[in-house]
Amino acid sequence: MLVYIAGSGAMGCTIGYKISKNSDNEVILLDYWQDHIDNINNNGLTVKGEFDDNIKIQAMKPSEASKKADLIVVMTKSMYLKDMMEAISHLIDENTQILCLLNGMGHEEILKNYVNLNQINMGVTIWAAALEEPGSITIRDIGTIDVQNIGGNEEAGKKVADILNEGKLNARYDKNVMYAIWRKVMVNGTMNSMTALLECTVGEFFAIDAHERIIDELVKEFVEVGNADGVNLDKKEMLDYIRETSKAAKDHYPSMYQDLVERNRKTEIDFINGAVVNKGKTHNIATPYNEIITQLVHAKEELNDAK
Amino acid sequence: MLVYIAGSGAMGCTIGYKISKNSDNEVILLDYWQDHIDNINNNGLTVKGEFDDNIKIQAMKPSEASKKADLIVVMTKSMYLKDMMEAISHLIDENTQILCLLNGMGHEEILKNYVNLNQINMGVTIWAAALEEPGSITIRDIGTIDVQNIGGNEEAGKKVADILNEGKLNARYDKNVMYAIWRKVMVNGTMNSMTALLECTVGEFFAIDAHERIIDELVKEFVEVGNADGVNLDKKEMLDYIRETSKAAKDHYPSMYQDLVERNRKTEIDFINGAVVNKGKTHNIATPYNEIITQLVHAKEELNDAK
Repeated sequence: MLVYIAGSGAMGCTIGYKISKNSDNEVILLDYWQDHIDNINNNGLTVKGEFDDNIKIQAMKPSEASKKADLIVVMTKSMYLKDMMEAISHLIDENTQILCLLNGMGHEEILKNYVNLNQINMGVTIWAAALEEPGSITIRDIGTIDVQNIGGNEEAGKKVADILNEGKLNARYDKNVMYAIWRKVMVNGTMNSMTALLECTVGEFFAIDAHERIIDELVKEFVEVGNADGVNLDKKEMLDYIRETSKAAKDHYPSMYQDLVERNRKTEIDFINGAVVNKGKTHNIATPYNEIITQLVHAKEELNDAK
Repeated sequence: MLVYIAGSGAMGCTIGYKISKNSDNEVILLDYWQDHIDNINNNGLTVKGEFDDNIKIQAMKPSEASKKADLIVVMTKSMYLKDMMEAISHLIDENTQILCLLNGMGHEEILKNYVNLNQINMGVTIWAAALEEPGSITIRDIGTIDVQNIGGNEEAGKKVADILNEGKLNARYDKNVMYAIWRKVMVNGTMNSMTALLECTVGEFFAIDAHERIIDELVKEFVEVGNADGVNLDKKEMLDYIRETSKAAKDHYPSMYQDLVERNRKTEIDFINGAVVNKGKTHNIATPYNEIITQLVHAKEELNDAK
């Protein structure tokens, strides 16, 4: 099988590395960062953390690739997904499966402009990695991947999970992946947004009096919209899960904080809190809390002149 | 007449200075800051800015005062109003009028525990001053004061305005002072809260794309609750006023920013955005935007360990 990684940052390289290392599938990393591409091609992909390794693997720009893909794992930032799909459309035919593991919700609305629903596999992963310099990643935690074909093409979805498992990525086919996706969005839509906005660690946010009321209102809206959207969500269960997750991450500055505060980069807020606002509108459900959080994060992006 | 200023910060000293300087009324400044009291008693009150002056004026702690007051101008921070009323209760009898010029709303709910409604005069001022060191204020702008007796005691209210005018404070009796108060609260509840939260100048906030939507939602709630509360407010008129005010203040960091960001002090948010939330509850009107802004400012206070 030919597997492209479309967007080869920390997570893209992690998935590409694991599949390339452990299986016979051909892997090509696609990216736009020339130094990163050059380093990988000249010196191999260096892997630190859980796996101390260096492997030979192909890297190139999307326009330099030409063979049709069996599987494309899209791993760009959410806001660049549309541009990436345009850039790789020549690699896709009716046999190509797409796997989307991006944080947040609503990516399928973009993907379905390029492929049929039965070619789209949505997933959620708790693998964790960082890219500190071109050509070198650190895999911080062994994770899992849940995946489901959202066009009902279970056979194709299971084949995608098989490729991931050949790469020892601990994948499982999940008949209700939207539940896992919404649950993760709620973690991101509380911990990530609030720490980015208030410039604090997860633990600091969860220590302040006001956090309970804020989280409660945000999650209430997520649950109401999710249930209207056909995902079966329980508010108390979600709050408990967020609280548990926050304990493990208490000293952590989440990725949105890193983007907004440390790196002056645009955030994925429109695919997190903003996504529930958009879905809320289609169900005629008001989501004022998530709406203002979305606007405040955008306000901070503008003030920071985020790129 | 004996006039006490209860809370002799920048604005309290400004009003005390003007009345003492320009009229025959006796003025006593009350405060808790011992260096400030000592400096005023030893060296006089120094006035810079619009009036280059130094005058002899009495200053003391509330517990050191004993004569019953004809007029008490309360000028503490909103959150210390209750404590101040406790501390000066021995200076109040049935002939004492109270004038409250504090930023925000809802102070009358505190005052009416200590005096009858017809002893309460609410007002709004656009005099502006700063206190940079003990015993010395800078009066930055000549202002005006609108005042109304909220117990319907127009005669008493006009007498209060007369005393202010003897002090050349440009007062007028306003039969609809709540309109002016709500309008000012909306300015504070947009410009002040948002600049404190996002850590920017007024002009920077009004330059970002998201500001329009944020202000629109905040003001919508203020207007809805205000109208239910019997104040006749028009949303477009309020938005226009806020926008005009923001232009004049564009390079300014409002007082809430100064409190929260520069001085690590608690803010008056509960009497600004928080006040419309409380009033909204009594009218069964949801105010999610003002509620989350209130909570976020409190969250920042906690994170900054504000005193």
